[in-house]
Amino acid sequence: MTGLVAPASERAARLLLSRVAEPYDEKVKALVAEHGVVDLVGYVVRDGRTPEGDRLDRFRPRLQSAQGVDEAQICRALGARVLVPGDEEWPSRLDDLEHPPWCLWVRGPQHLAEVTARSVAMVGSRASSAYGDEVTARIAYGLVERGFTTVSGAAYGIDAAAHRATLRADGLTVAVLAGGVDVPYPRANTDLLVAIGGTGAVVSETPPGGAPARMRFLSRNRIIAALTPGTVVVEANLRSGARSTTREARELDRHVMAVPGPVTSTMSAGCHEEIRLGATLVTDAAEVADLVGRIGEDIAPVKRGEVRPEDALEPETRRVWQWLRPRRSSSVDELMVRSGLGLSEVLVALSELEQLGLAEHLLDGWKRAGGRR
Amino acid sequence: MTGLVAPASERAARLLLSRVAEPYDEKVKALVAEHGVVDLVGYVVRDGRTPEGDRLDRFRPRLQSAQGVDEAQICRALGARVLVPGDEEWPSRLDDLEHPPWCLWVRGPQHLAEVTARSVAMVGSRASSAYGDEVTARIAYGLVERGFTTVSGAAYGIDAAAHRATLRADGLTVAVLAGGVDVPYPRANTDLLVAIGGTGAVVSETPPGGAPARMRFLSRNRIIAALTPGTVVVEANLRSGARSTTREARELDRHVMAVPGPVTSTMSAGCHEEIRLGATLVTDAAEVADLVGRIGEDIAPVKRGEVRPEDALEPETRRVWQWLRPRRSSSVDELMVRSGLGLSEVLVALSELEQLGLAEHLLDGWKRAGGRR
Repeated sequence: MTGLVAPASERAARLLLSRVAEPYDEKVKALVAEHGVVDLVGYVVRDGRTPEGDRLDRFRPRLQSAQGVDEAQICRALGARVLVPGDEEWPSRLDDLEHPPWCLWVRGPQHLAEVTARSVAMVGSRASSAYGDEVTARIAYGLVERGFTTVSGAAYGIDAAAHRATLRADGLTVAVLAGGVDVPYPRANTDLLVAIGGTGAVVSETPPGGAPARMRFLSRNRIIAALTPGTVVVEANLRSGARSTTREARELDRHVMAVPGPVTSTMSAGCHEEIRLGATLVTDAAEVADLVGRIGEDIAPVKRGEVRPEDALEPETRRVWQWLRPRRSSSVDELMVRSGLGLSEVLVALSELEQLGLAEHLLDGWKRAGGRR
Repeated sequence: MTGLVAPASERAARLLLSRVAEPYDEKVKALVAEHGVVDLVGYVVRDGRTPEGDRLDRFRPRLQSAQGVDEAQICRALGARVLVPGDEEWPSRLDDLEHPPWCLWVRGPQHLAEVTARSVAMVGSRASSAYGDEVTARIAYGLVERGFTTVSGAAYGIDAAAHRATLRADGLTVAVLAGGVDVPYPRANTDLLVAIGGTGAVVSETPPGGAPARMRFLSRNRIIAALTPGTVVVEANLRSGARSTTREARELDRHVMAVPGPVTSTMSAGCHEEIRLGATLVTDAAEVADLVGRIGEDIAPVKRGEVRPEDALEPETRRVWQWLRPRRSSSVDELMVRSGLGLSEVLVALSELEQLGLAEHLLDGWKRAGGRR
């Protein structure tokens, strides 16, 4: 018995749960699944145990201070709001998670469900290379041109490169943090987070003031994966935390994409392993949009090289053409022997080539024309 | 009527056909399929037309000079031999082609079927980058270590890098040429071809003396694809001829592999497109061997990062561990609040961490131990 009053509303119960339990705690998830949030929080606050006698010790260390929190006051002070499942602004994609966040704190002018409707997550190594940063920026620019929001984690390296390029392109970007929305992390990205919150959205399931603890990053990564229809990993070493985002994306049946790089760079090794495991190799924004975009609207052309006039020739015409020289003329007899074709076939081919401007008839024979190369 | 004597043996007929017709000529292929080599060559030599009245003009320009050739004498002079289908040295993989070569000329000490039994084709751009050359050499070295023969086309760039690295590693390599086995092409690779012919094999379907004409390269590429159980393309721009080799390999149900590179390099664009079309991304020889090697012998390990002691911890133990600091101690109360766990859970975790040498009990609390990082 704690002597405290249990919250009556689902929203209030979720807020309290966010304050007293870690989002990744398997035991808490199991208890919520069994009892529902309101009843569970009632047992925590009133009884200290479930009717079945489960001890709820792990909720107690933070309970006293959590009950003293004025959530509305905190939100006002931060210019933030709290979303719970069922709210109009709650992105329904999050309901694909086995355990959606209990709450989400949001700062920024954008409607979270709308701004992430057409979006791509871009993630990767904190210790990115110049190559990774450049490719991230190119892809982010291209995604903005195509009307996509970028979603990332505001970390050093690829995350920051994605957010910054999006902002430079006057696009919308969403940062999902492991700590509270008022806890800039890493500190050096404080200005970046202010800029993101000024035009896009800064989001967290960790209550304001909460530290970005290591295991919260993994929990945060599942939100990045769930918020978007696809995740691109640009650079990642084999152990990169970014790969937990792609793992979540794969489990959620989202598109998983990876950018290749030199096989001599450890920063691309995780990307190559992702592709070997089934991720789609992407090299630019068009290919990303092709995969995650609206069907029929965002089709990336298959990449082809330059098209040359001789590509369109029939095989035998091409055979004669290849033996014509650009600067010296060849006799018809010579062309027959070289091409292995009979007289009539060589003459038909030469006539066609002449009409196409690809061959020229001189006094002493034939040579290539067109001067295209 | 030409008045010449038609060859009676299949081998002699194939030799003559090689002299008078291009290997890629669709009409010739169709005629061979209809009449068989011996009968067709008989019609060419004796009648100048088929019994159905097909004119065989295209065979005539070269017929006179071809009939004057002493093939045995040429082979003796070159130290070469001619293989036809059914010969013991004929690689049976070539019979997977819809139109196998009529003959193959071979120079070098190796038995062609045996030396290509365990082999990999390595192909790519003539204008390779330093990156491409380096990666080609690494993979070729690794393939030699694993007992593979490399097969390529002796061109500049990736081809030459593959042959040279194989020779440096004292491995066996096979060059398949578009021109005759006595026509070094490109000229600058003459020494390379001498070295390949000295230890491995130099092979061509083009008769000795034949020029490496443009369309013969495409025909040659199908032999490289067919001779090997798998083709690796290391660098290729979108239009690279190397992609005709991978196309043939795909059609023959051979393994197609591509090495990624920077998306900013046009030399890797063809490789990336190959991977998007279904080729397997490979980064080293182990991954190549895994795909084309003997099942159960050449298994490439899944690439993982460094394994850390904390990876093996149970979730709650890990939660406590992550909040321990390496240089400052934390009280049990502090660890309870930070980890969101109850007293007994924190104490169990600390006891386990201490036993593993990952935590240390000081006068004023607990800190991380092990000094592993």
